[in-house]
Amino acid sequence: MDRDAETALARLVRSARVATLATLREGAPNASLVSVLPDAQARTLWLRLSRLAWHTQDLARDARAALLLAEADDARADPQTLARLTLRGEARPLAAEDPALAELRAAWLTRFPASAVTFELADFGFWRFAVRDARLVAGLARTWNVTPERLWEAVA
Amino acid sequence: MDRDAETALARLVRSARVATLATLREGAPNASLVSVLPDAQARTLWLRLSRLAWHTQDLARDARAALLLAEADDARADPQTLARLTLRGEARPLAAEDPALAELRAAWLTRFPASAVTFELADFGFWRFAVRDARLVAGLARTWNVTPERLWEAVA
Repeated sequence: MDRDAETALARLVRSARVATLATLREGAPNASLVSVLPDAQARTLWLRLSRLAWHTQDLARDARAALLLAEADDARADPQTLARLTLRGEARPLAAEDPALAELRAAWLTRFPASAVTFELADFGFWRFAVRDARLVAGLARTWNVTPERLWEAVA
Repeated sequence: MDRDAETALARLVRSARVATLATLREGAPNASLVSVLPDAQARTLWLRLSRLAWHTQDLARDARAALLLAEADDARADPQTLARLTLRGEARPLAAEDPALAELRAAWLTRFPASAVTFELADFGFWRFAVRDARLVAGLARTWNVTPERLWEAVA
């Protein structure tokens, strides 16, 4: 990875508020938009999902998932130069009595103030996305495989 | 679907230049960014993919896929109000001698002028994404299932 790629990687993980979540639904791919909170210390990305949503039902049946974090299309001439990062791994729910919960709740509300209502709804909970491997694309023939170790070092 | 939702649906399909493509890779979800061209007349979304890319290898083994088209994050207070559309279906390559090719090539180059180089590379080709079902989310508790018929009517 060159310096530009490392910068793009860190920026994507730190600043992307939303990502596309790919899950398995009856054995076929499903894709949906989710809010994300990176946590370099815990080496995870946090999701906050409703049990009523399809993707949550999918993950409850099969934890395997992928997340795509991408630069927003800024109407540049060539959208294929947009930086994007595929994270593949597993997503699992955080136990309701987990000691990390209070701090996580505060961090989530700082990033997503409008989501306060979800803390009054019983169907919402936190999910931990553990990265198994990552792949950064920053243009034609600019593709790098990234280990979880390298990913979280770049973000820290 | 209310009027606002129909407007959001048509705008997403007409104007999104990029989408997240979810495929199956060794039975697990994969997610990547692809350029898209909607074609209401052919009732399809066109993709232009390199055989060297993981997602193309995935689709060659299993045509089932999903596309997520989403409004770009504009730093609004609540990103969960961003409109997004999940399209589930199958993606299959267009034959190199297909009569649709000349017109399609011209339409693609109009939308993506910087992609001219891909027409000089043997590994790139067009793929037809056929929509099996669609799901529009335009905020909390604003979710609609959309048939392919209704989708293409809204876009036409």
